[in-house]
Amino acid sequence: MKGCFITFEGTEGAGKSTQILAVSKFLQQQGLEVITTREPGGTALSEQIRGLLLDKSQKMSQMTELLLMFAARAEHLSQVILPALQAGKWVLCDRFTESSYAYQGYGRGMPLENIAILEQLVQGDLRPDCTFWFDIPILEGMKRVNRRGEQDRFEVENIAFFESIASGFQALSEQRPSQFYRIDATQSIEKVTAMIEEKLDQLIAMHAVKGIQGL
Amino acid sequence: MKGCFITFEGTEGAGKSTQILAVSKFLQQQGLEVITTREPGGTALSEQIRGLLLDKSQKMSQMTELLLMFAARAEHLSQVILPALQAGKWVLCDRFTESSYAYQGYGRGMPLENIAILEQLVQGDLRPDCTFWFDIPILEGMKRVNRRGEQDRFEVENIAFFESIASGFQALSEQRPSQFYRIDATQSIEKVTAMIEEKLDQLIAMHAVKGIQGL
Repeated sequence: MKGCFITFEGTEGAGKSTQILAVSKFLQQQGLEVITTREPGGTALSEQIRGLLLDKSQKMSQMTELLLMFAARAEHLSQVILPALQAGKWVLCDRFTESSYAYQGYGRGMPLENIAILEQLVQGDLRPDCTFWFDIPILEGMKRVNRRGEQDRFEVENIAFFESIASGFQALSEQRPSQFYRIDATQSIEKVTAMIEEKLDQLIAMHAVKGIQGL
Repeated sequence: MKGCFITFEGTEGAGKSTQILAVSKFLQQQGLEVITTREPGGTALSEQIRGLLLDKSQKMSQMTELLLMFAARAEHLSQVILPALQAGKWVLCDRFTESSYAYQGYGRGMPLENIAILEQLVQGDLRPDCTFWFDIPILEGMKRVNRRGEQDRFEVENIAFFESIASGFQALSEQRPSQFYRIDATQSIEKVTAMIEEKLDQLIAMHAVKGIQGL
């Protein structure tokens, strides 16, 4: 791929949205073309599927939830992410498959191998070039979410559920060390931004080398 | 499973709906508990997914279509089909996974192994006890559909597409000979009904033996 695929993961209230805006601005200042998107969602159809997934009144089996996530993802990849990467753009995505592992796998207990089967089926060998993992203690994140107001179907889950998800991101970061970049999200916004920009400088340099080598 | 799982397959206009009603009535007359359902659909959520799938204005990738089909199926299985079979009921389903093979696989060219992966993921070892395959020449079926009026996203496809689907059902019936029961759907409604009832008598007898053996 000519572009660079960057995803943002973490439990609720870790400050992803704020930082995605900052990353977009930073990369554009470097003269790079950037698109910002999110999962589940990112296309008209995928946003309709997101509506089904986040509706608190909607009951569904774990397998249904997982398949809807990947249906939205397949559409998002074919319509938005892959065309952008092929055109050399930098794609910033708020959540991706790593959230499926963390939420549906570690959180709800869906066998991880089921998620791996769907990851391979839908993505082939595509994985994010870099995943910024916003690590924050659950209670700290929840306090921030509560200040924001209304909760969706995922956000009303209990604390043990979110602890499992956090342990999932920890486990994923150990399994995919070259992909994951841990951010201590308890730091100030400015410190987090500075940490991310340091990593982005590396990615830009690596990406320039890849471009020269025609990879 | 204590119940019996019967599915009805075929290209458009083959007369499935009429015969499903007749089968339901016949089985109930034998004192059996019967539920009639359909795919994609069968639950409130699955019908919402069906709405996305059959919307002519909706463009989607093949993988998205396949995953939405199986998301609706996972919900249908967990909410409707499996509980009914476990309660000893006879489940009559208008289309099932064999339609995914025929339409998305043979029709649209999605690799059959992708469908097999999802079939195993979502169904485990569950397969229909009997699939009535309504075989009808495409043009004959289309004439009947045109008489019915408005067409959905699948029905506006061209004839070559439906010929591929028909060849798919033919291939499946050869791969799964003990499951598939071919119906010559060009015959009169009465003759088709009689042919189906003959097979149902066999299924009822086999099912009674299974019940005695505690299988």
